[in-house]
Amino acid sequence: MPPRFHQLRKSHLFLTGALVGILQLAGSAVATSAAAEPLASWNDVASKRAIIDFVKRVASEGSPDLVPVAERIAVFDNDGTLWSEQPMYFQLAFALDRVKALAPKHPEWKTTQPFKGVLEGDMKAALAGGERSLMAILAATHAGMTTDEFSAAVTDWLATSQHPRFKRPYSDLVFQPMLEVLDYLRANGFKTYIVSGGGVEMIRGFAERVYGIPPEQVIGSRIKMEYQARGGHPVIARLPGIDFVDDKAGKPVGIEQIIGRRPIMAFGNSDGDFQMLEWTTTGKGPRFALIVHHTDGEREWAYDRTSHIGQLVRGLDEGPTRGWIIADMKTDWKVIYPFQK
Amino acid sequence: MPPRFHQLRKSHLFLTGALVGILQLAGSAVATSAAAEPLASWNDVASKRAIIDFVKRVASEGSPDLVPVAERIAVFDNDGTLWSEQPMYFQLAFALDRVKALAPKHPEWKTTQPFKGVLEGDMKAALAGGERSLMAILAATHAGMTTDEFSAAVTDWLATSQHPRFKRPYSDLVFQPMLEVLDYLRANGFKTYIVSGGGVEMIRGFAERVYGIPPEQVIGSRIKMEYQARGGHPVIARLPGIDFVDDKAGKPVGIEQIIGRRPIMAFGNSDGDFQMLEWTTTGKGPRFALIVHHTDGEREWAYDRTSHIGQLVRGLDEGPTRGWIIADMKTDWKVIYPFQK
Repeated sequence: MPPRFHQLRKSHLFLTGALVGILQLAGSAVATSAAAEPLASWNDVASKRAIIDFVKRVASEGSPDLVPVAERIAVFDNDGTLWSEQPMYFQLAFALDRVKALAPKHPEWKTTQPFKGVLEGDMKAALAGGERSLMAILAATHAGMTTDEFSAAVTDWLATSQHPRFKRPYSDLVFQPMLEVLDYLRANGFKTYIVSGGGVEMIRGFAERVYGIPPEQVIGSRIKMEYQARGGHPVIARLPGIDFVDDKAGKPVGIEQIIGRRPIMAFGNSDGDFQMLEWTTTGKGPRFALIVHHTDGEREWAYDRTSHIGQLVRGLDEGPTRGWIIADMKTDWKVIYPFQK
Repeated sequence: MPPRFHQLRKSHLFLTGALVGILQLAGSAVATSAAAEPLASWNDVASKRAIIDFVKRVASEGSPDLVPVAERIAVFDNDGTLWSEQPMYFQLAFALDRVKALAPKHPEWKTTQPFKGVLEGDMKAALAGGERSLMAILAATHAGMTTDEFSAAVTDWLATSQHPRFKRPYSDLVFQPMLEVLDYLRANGFKTYIVSGGGVEMIRGFAERVYGIPPEQVIGSRIKMEYQARGGHPVIARLPGIDFVDDKAGKPVGIEQIIGRRPIMAFGNSDGDFQMLEWTTTGKGPRFALIVHHTDGEREWAYDRTSHIGQLVRGLDEGPTRGWIIADMKTDWKVIYPFQK
């Protein structure tokens, strides 16, 4: 027996762990824990099988449809696809709470709409001015501060606020089955991106902790920003104006601006995602799109064609003929949220 | 001796390779080939030592200044920092060649400036209209096509054009010492980004092949784009208008838009990079900035304070007191281009 055999065996065990890690990074289809029981919170239904079949097709060594790791880009809408969006977009809840928090510094808001309505809980009055009202709330709560100050406000709000129905932090209302999709794709070499109509710096405030998605893989709507050197202490100031709306036909443009290549998988839940799914699935080679259909009024919410949030019409009408998968939350998902596991 | 010992030894060797790979990915400071002789094309000078000292400080296990891998972001200007920019920005050379290539389809250009001047080789006449002339050339050569068509034009030009002085493809004129910096940083867990005033989709046309930098890690100036569904065949159209100028104070904004966190290392060569270096080096924790100073009129070009391209004044005046490293191309670099090795 050669010397140091025990050391060799120990290192062998250690190195096997390293090997599993590197093969996961390389996206090879080895038997990892994720591969042993992927998508555990999904029932054994067509949507689950479609995801797994597609991933095996593009990520298995020797597959005729193997896609290089660098091109394994998957994009996910956020509101309604990765977390809930009822009874209002969580970012709007943040904005309304910010109005209340900032009100002591703005005594004039007591008598000025839309702030008066927000402070008095009269949303009808607050939003009577339509888009102009919303823009005023956005400017007051999302601009006029540095990026660092805004990030701190987001972090603070997420730590202290509660969703009205579930009495839990908003970031608890992420979809467990979709967290498993994110993990499964990453274990197979995919780079996972969020492509949201919501504000990018809001989502960056929790995406790494909650989804494992780093800031540079979050694409969203942007406010105007300006670099200002305040006497040797430079800041990036958030200005009251929209720079880019990453919704509908804006989503493929946001993807091109920031990723610079066409994704091969896309996940959405509303017609705001239609163009992203269309752009993804009309490229060459293997393509995949899935729509999360909100059908579970008991465990989550049920809404589609007539909803003012997350309206879904074209996706239901055209999706199936385009080969897009419709995931029915009620029948396809064992649990909705991680705290229900 | 236990069975299968030889197999074990073989797998041990194989796994050792995997381990080196994963440790490189994890950014640990193990003795890799890159660590054995990093920055081989740099002379043993202060600038080289400063780079290595900084990387050891932030990437060595046990260092009090260890920076998590996720935060190891390094940003590089392109023109004049990663490749040459004389006698004119290579993107301008591309644009002028495109005018000539497109001229048969535009007979009116024979009598219309700035195109007439370009076609006749009279650049003074072509650019007499200043910025308006440049914008007209940009609109004619960079817009009015899809993103796919533009990428094909870039690829074709890079494959067929030659730099007037070196009679080689433009993408041969990258700086060998900087390629080694890119490799060395990546071997130590850094994510390397280009942050350029040049057009982002032009740079994406060669960055992966030449620098090992994927499209999603290229930030640059952007033209306006629009998603257009042309009868079931969607495209992204490039429109004649500037969306974003990623230069000077625009660079920190571009970084915030796309990366969403502050880099810890920045490399530039002109005052167009000043704000990027300032933004990088005024954050908390260990920070590093380096300016490539074009001092070698024989092997490359010598220019700084009075140059119309890559002007460098503030960087030379304020850089040293800010702790920024000035790399002198003539004295610090053994070779300039890979083909000189």
